[in-house]
Amino acid sequence: MNIAVYAGSFDPITKGHQDVIKRAAKICDKLIVAVLNNNNKKYWFSLEERKELTREVLKDIPNIEVKDFSGLLVNFMEQEGANLVIRGLRAVSDYEYELALAYGNREIADIDIETIFLPASKEFLYLSSSVVREVAMYDGKLEKFVDERIIDKVKERAFSLKK
Amino acid sequence: MNIAVYAGSFDPITKGHQDVIKRAAKICDKLIVAVLNNNNKKYWFSLEERKELTREVLKDIPNIEVKDFSGLLVNFMEQEGANLVIRGLRAVSDYEYELALAYGNREIADIDIETIFLPASKEFLYLSSSVVREVAMYDGKLEKFVDERIIDKVKERAFSLKK
Amino acid sequence: MNIAVYAGSFDPITKGHQDVIKRAAKICDKLIVAVLNNNNKKYWFSLEERKELTREVLKDIPNIEVKDFSGLLVNFMEQEGANLVIRGLRAVSDYEYELALAYGNREIADIDIETIFLPASKEFLYLSSSVVREVAMYDGKLEKFVDERIIDKVKERAFSLKK
Amino acid sequence: MNIAVYAGSFDPITKGHQDVIKRAAKICDKLIVAVLNNNNKKYWFSLEERKELTREVLKDIPNIEVKDFSGLLVNFMEQEGANLVIRGLRAVSDYEYELALAYGNREIADIDIETIFLPASKEFLYLSSSVVREVAMYDGKLEKFVDERIIDKVKERAFSLKK
Amino acid sequence: MNIAVYAGSFDPITKGHQDVIKRAAKICDKLIVAVLNNNNKKYWFSLEERKELTREVLKDIPNIEVKDFSGLLVNFMEQEGANLVIRGLRAVSDYEYELALAYGNREIADIDIETIFLPASKEFLYLSSSVVREVAMYDGKLEKFVDERIIDKVKERAFSLKK
Amino acid sequence: MNIAVYAGSFDPITKGHQDVIKRAAKICDKLIVAVLNNNNKKYWFSLEERKELTREVLKDIPNIEVKDFSGLLVNFMEQEGANLVIRGLRAVSDYEYELALAYGNREIADIDIETIFLPASKEFLYLSSSVVREVAMYDGKLEKFVDERIIDKVKERAFSLKK
Repeated sequence: MNIAVYAGSFDPITKGHQDVIKRAAKICDKLIVAVLNNNNKKYWFSLEERKELTREVLKDIPNIEVKDFSGLLVNFMEQEGANLVIRGLRAVSDYEYELALAYGNREIADIDIETIFLPASKEFLYLSSSVVREVAMYDGKLEKFVDERIIDKVKERAFSLKK
Repeated sequence: MNIAVYAGSFDPITKGHQDVIKRAAKICDKLIVAVLNNNNKKYWFSLEERKELTREVLKDIPNIEVKDFSGLLVNFMEQEGANLVIRGLRAVSDYEYELALAYGNREIADIDIETIFLPASKEFLYLSSSVVREVAMYDGKLEKFVDERIIDKVKERAFSLKK
Repeated sequence: MNIAVYAGSFDPITKGHQDVIKRAAKICDKLIVAVLNNNNKKYWFSLEERKELTREVLKDIPNIEVKDFSGLLVNFMEQEGANLVIRGLRAVSDYEYELALAYGNREIADIDIETIFLPASKEFLYLSSSVVREVAMYDGKLEKFVDERIIDKVKERAFSLKK
Repeated sequence: MNIAVYAGSFDPITKGHQDVIKRAAKICDKLIVAVLNNNNKKYWFSLEERKELTREVLKDIPNIEVKDFSGLLVNFMEQEGANLVIRGLRAVSDYEYELALAYGNREIADIDIETIFLPASKEFLYLSSSVVREVAMYDGKLEKFVDERIIDKVKERAFSLKK
Repeated sequence: MNIAVYAGSFDPITKGHQDVIKRAAKICDKLIVAVLNNNNKKYWFSLEERKELTREVLKDIPNIEVKDFSGLLVNFMEQEGANLVIRGLRAVSDYEYELALAYGNREIADIDIETIFLPASKEFLYLSSSVVREVAMYDGKLEKFVDERIIDKVKERAFSLKK
Repeated sequence: MNIAVYAGSFDPITKGHQDVIKRAAKICDKLIVAVLNNNNKKYWFSLEERKELTREVLKDIPNIEVKDFSGLLVNFMEQEGANLVIRGLRAVSDYEYELALAYGNREIADIDIETIFLPASKEFLYLSSSVVREVAMYDGKLEKFVDERIIDKVKERAFSLKK
């Protein structure tokens, strides 16, 4: 039984994240979407908001749980009984950074951990939360980047941050 | 249920291939090791020999089948009821070539196919069958590259090819 | 006045080539599509056939001429009075090879030559004539790869080559 | 008619920028050098100074206008009636970041926008404004990096910032 | 006579640094390990501590001197009579950044400076001081990353920083 | 004492090779330029000719020996008492291939072997013997690519091969 973790900041979750999650959910028994909380980082959305937005757009996929974590991913996985890390690759140049994470996790884990990579679908190559935030900040079109169910919340946040 | 395919020439199978296969077998229900037969390519070992060597070193892994195929991988998968392609990545620069294959397979497949990438373990980075053949040809040490159960067969073949 | 050259083997021309050509034609006054003839290379289609297929799918773009050339691109450009080389980039890893060509052309040219790069549209990333030929060889679907006006000719050629 | 935009911070403009601008100006009818003003970023030179330095070193090229902009590049282009984005590539690893920008601009633009890449001339590979600032800060030689007409202003600014 | 410099922040020195230093020390007459002091950067360990930790783990290698420097590396080298820069490469994607440094140093130096690259040993690929600090911060295992002679000091620092 | 080996086909030696050799010769005691003889490969120049051309352009550098070898580089090094492999890097994308060679050599060697990389000088980036041969074949200018002392021999060979 494969329990997999897909971790990220999801500030906010993009259509690219959703695509990887949908595809990953099909190949594992349970997929935990792990929302990272790093106290040293500034987010647009609070931890609770990020989990809420993430749950909103994933609610139709049955074998998914949205949780939060902080600290080392391997500790979170041990605690959840997870054996698989899922990582999406949006850009070719992501790969080596991801490789570093995968080797690092393996070296510090007490359990057997496997990292597998899923390439982004072509239409979502190069899409990231920071692109979403920048486009939102300047009132650009978000339809191709963010699920329609949360698009208004992203626009509102941009509006309130500009003031 | 995940039925995965790991395809290659395996001329001969290396310790790097074995490592990826062992790790992949843990995360899918059935793993088909698919030995490619391309009539336009010259091999050191015949199709039957390549399947035999591959079976020999994998015989301790229960959920594996060694088969051969030719033509388009997606047709083979359809026929086998497989949904997952497993690809090992030995080098960072492999990644984009692999991405091209993954996108290509998706675009010509009638079924839903997912490609996942497993990075080679550090010790097997940059190891390939062609390295094995070149080192064998010049009587170099093969212990780090090839399973001991087939090492003599590789040396014999190199010896007979040099004549 | 910009007279640009877009060179390649076009064996056969793909939808990716067409996309780059259409976009390039908009930004230069005249675009010469230069079909390479290299006597040391084996093609699926003869030089005349490649020019014909290329002309067929480009006939709606007004400022285009399809010509053939052999030898050094810079000599062909000098003879045609062209100042711009257009290169499409299908993959990130293409870039450095293309850079080598661009620097090489500049160093051996007697005239002022500029090379500009256009990235492939996302849907045509990783598409090449060799992908087309391989898919055709195994009766795979070509609709996403090749213009419908020449798709039958590609299939026929694959059929006759298999015999 | 091609109206192109070459955007950047130009803090300060380097010989590498100048080289790309000179070459780009030859292949378009009008080239707008767009100096970015980002209120969240700290610059060595104010927006007015950056425009002044940029104008100073480009004053011999006829079809150039130096303007400033903020916000999304595509909005600026729409307002200027520009259809082409010119991007210089200083390093191979720049390319994928630039690709992300190019695809992003295309996806949010209401108008037809094309991005073309010009590789840096060999001598200016790897040259950037931040290299200039760092070398200036430690009294290193700037002759190969910055136009002689503005070199004193760069040295003076480094001197005053060190105090 | 080759006097080489291997420069870095060493905050703290990792087993990867040690490996490159040991190998580099064999191929030059004298190797200066140059600990960078940048007043604009925040370190975990003070300059004196970083030099002490570095000396501690390198004390068995005879032809090494640990020194500190600030400003441009080329000025430090001139003052030390050094002609060689040694750079370790931990990741493939490091290479182009390193190339930029190497060319930059050459262009601003009054003396003849050569930069040579040593690839990290496989086991230390992707290891960096920032990985060490992050793992330490969350009480992860450090044995594979840091020399046992300084591991307690790293743990203590993490502990005191968490308070 | 460092005895280094710089190996290649040198068919023919380019100005880029010469540049790396000159720079490498300064940092080692003896540098063996090792001309590879691979019976399965077709060369423009015979082994003897390649050694002759190489000697001709290197005759002013004192601590150099030009030799030939075949088989595994590590065996040649053992026999010559060499401890260092010098590799020039002409392109960023060369690096990973070179890394594979470096790790491979280390793994099959009975002796301690170190590989160091020297980046090509900017003006010789992307220059290779195959570029030289192609330009020569079409009567292009060779002055920037090949030492004037051997340029006529390259042109003559191109002329005789064209017949």
